[in-house]
Amino acid sequence: MTIRVEQAAIIGVGLLGASLGLALKQRGLAGHIVGVGRSHESLGTALKRGAIDDAALNVSEGVSEADLICIATPAGAVTATLDAVIAASPAHAVVFDVASTKKNICDHARTHCPLPRRFAGCHPMAGSEKSGPAHAFPNLYAGATCLVERDDTIAPDARDQVCALWRAVGSRVVDIDPAGHDVLLAATSHAPHVAAAILARIASDSGATGDFIGNGFRDVTRVAASRAELWRDICMENREALCYSLGEMRRQIALVESLLTSGNTVALEEFFEAAADARRRITEL
Amino acid sequence: MTIRVEQAAIIGVGLLGASLGLALKQRGLAGHIVGVGRSHESLGTALKRGAIDDAALNVSEGVSEADLICIATPAGAVTATLDAVIAASPAHAVVFDVASTKKNICDHARTHCPLPRRFAGCHPMAGSEKSGPAHAFPNLYAGATCLVERDDTIAPDARDQVCALWRAVGSRVVDIDPAGHDVLLAATSHAPHVAAAILARIASDSGATGDFIGNGFRDVTRVAASRAELWRDICMENREALCYSLGEMRRQIALVESLLTSGNTVALEEFFEAAADARRRITEL
Repeated sequence: MTIRVEQAAIIGVGLLGASLGLALKQRGLAGHIVGVGRSHESLGTALKRGAIDDAALNVSEGVSEADLICIATPAGAVTATLDAVIAASPAHAVVFDVASTKKNICDHARTHCPLPRRFAGCHPMAGSEKSGPAHAFPNLYAGATCLVERDDTIAPDARDQVCALWRAVGSRVVDIDPAGHDVLLAATSHAPHVAAAILARIASDSGATGDFIGNGFRDVTRVAASRAELWRDICMENREALCYSLGEMRRQIALVESLLTSGNTVALEEFFEAAADARRRITEL
Repeated sequence: MTIRVEQAAIIGVGLLGASLGLALKQRGLAGHIVGVGRSHESLGTALKRGAIDDAALNVSEGVSEADLICIATPAGAVTATLDAVIAASPAHAVVFDVASTKKNICDHARTHCPLPRRFAGCHPMAGSEKSGPAHAFPNLYAGATCLVERDDTIAPDARDQVCALWRAVGSRVVDIDPAGHDVLLAATSHAPHVAAAILARIASDSGATGDFIGNGFRDVTRVAASRAELWRDICMENREALCYSLGEMRRQIALVESLLTSGNTVALEEFFEAAADARRRITEL
């Protein structure tokens, strides 16, 4: 299946939205792209970069003639944006988002979209600690995995178009259940992000200078440099699963403390060995 | 000050030891290098790579004619190795280590070496999650910071030689106090390592496959792939300071959980902003 739309709208022209615009343009997948944003500055940058052809400051104006609509706002704004999109877009328009959480968003879509719905929740596993249209690039999604909601309330032709779009920009599509997605992502992404933030704070509070920082620290804490607003939303949206993973972190930290205090070198080595095996297993799966 | 020794001994021909051997060879800093190791296999690899000229299976044999001796064993074996080195090496020999912890090792040196001592504790901020002589390379220390113990029980000419050696292989020398070093490294390296190990375990236990793994996870957990034996020793050697940092982690995780549970989005965003600022500050210092 190939895809080519007359008019696309991208709501939120940050790293993800503007990179999608560049990818659509570069591959000739969209005739005209309208960007919708909150600030003249980011819209101006997206226009200058060629990620969008036209700019709008509100959703209803931006989506009124769109065939394909990408909601690329922070996670906390997706459901309200989706409501505005449904109210103002043509009935045939295909809609998707790119947020890192899926359960709340897809639950909302299931109950607020006309059925069969033409919205499918998406989570492309691509991104960076850098944000904004200035850092966008057309190959952000090339070689990435895109997790796409599978649900029988979604119109098959709409979902097929969303999947075709992701494949057209170079991604591999994997079907997901939104609730299961959020539980897994709490463990693989959201809890690691919180941990990285805490580690950056503890290191800074220790009074250490750059002399005491190695590549390990830089890697472990890289994601702590991400935009606070985005991660505030992601964590709040997925608070239940995230709290479970964070509680598990606290329990395992306490376990390590008890091994250290009791001098249990054998169990401590086994702990690290199991972690190295776990990382090998999951990154090879 | 330039440095060039007739005979060097490197005890432990893993990544750090073998890379030092390659650096000394490449730069013509040592006439003959004897490697001391526990296994024929790693010694054979180090010989084949050209990191050492000769191999010995015990310390006394390896150091008997050495002018410069590097102890590159796991942290937990450094003090016993130092005792063996002092018993068997020429009185003029200069000795240093490369372990990631310094207080226990330098305390031991202060009380067990003839004074003024010719041992200086060192911690080159270089390394990788990969281990063993097969991964060694001559520029591991180029551009790195090497933290070198400053203490008035060290013979100035011996310490000068150690510092000259690090500069000769491309490192920048920074003076440290061993106890202060361990407190800072607990925060910047040892606690992050424990956290990375726990995050790898939690992600694996969640049942996630590679489809649900992004670059963030790979970076945050990269150091969890390190050799378990090395990190067992580092954590045990620095258990007091490490337990303090781990307790602080648990407290901050509990704080984030309370922000999530109470829906305090403002404080959560401030938390992430402070973390991004902290990381920027410390990596720029």
